[in-house]
Amino acid sequence: MTATEAIGYLAALLTTTSFVPQALHIWRTRDARAISLGMYSVFSAGVALWLAYGLLVGSCPVMLANVVTLFFALSILLMKIRYDRERRR
Amino acid sequence: MTATEAIGYLAALLTTTSFVPQALHIWRTRDARAISLGMYSVFSAGVALWLAYGLLVGSCPVMLANVVTLFFALSILLMKIRYDRERRR
Repeated sequence: MTATEAIGYLAALLTTTSFVPQALHIWRTRDARAISLGMYSVFSAGVALWLAYGLLVGSCPVMLANVVTLFFALSILLMKIRYDRERRR
Repeated sequence: MTATEAIGYLAALLTTTSFVPQALHIWRTRDARAISLGMYSVFSAGVALWLAYGLLVGSCPVMLANVVTLFFALSILLMKIRYDRERRR
């Protein structure tokens, strides 16, 4: 592996795993008011397209990174909808 | 441009621009409590590495997408630190 490839893999690891603390933060506090519904709607659609792109070009790292990111982005989106609804009651 | 390339560009456009509504949401409400400091720290570091990767491989789309994303990710990170500090006073 070249140094450039290593930087690319480390970049992918960081941007993918960064959504884990965000999902856990919302899960623990049951507060998602500062989370933007627009962001996670557009972001999830974008990540789904990245996954389609990875499948079409046959790139395992792109597929893997985007499956993981899509799982956490959709979890955050669903918690946002659920916890905001609970607060309005 | 092939259909696959078009999907890739649309994916990049969506995941990049999705951070704009999140930054505006925090800016308007001055509430960043549900935002994870861990997420935006790790995410910003990851995007900076993606930018370095783009520079090293000479990829204009990777550089451009990550300059824009880094700007918004750092804005969200700085607002998180600032507004949380204001609330603790």
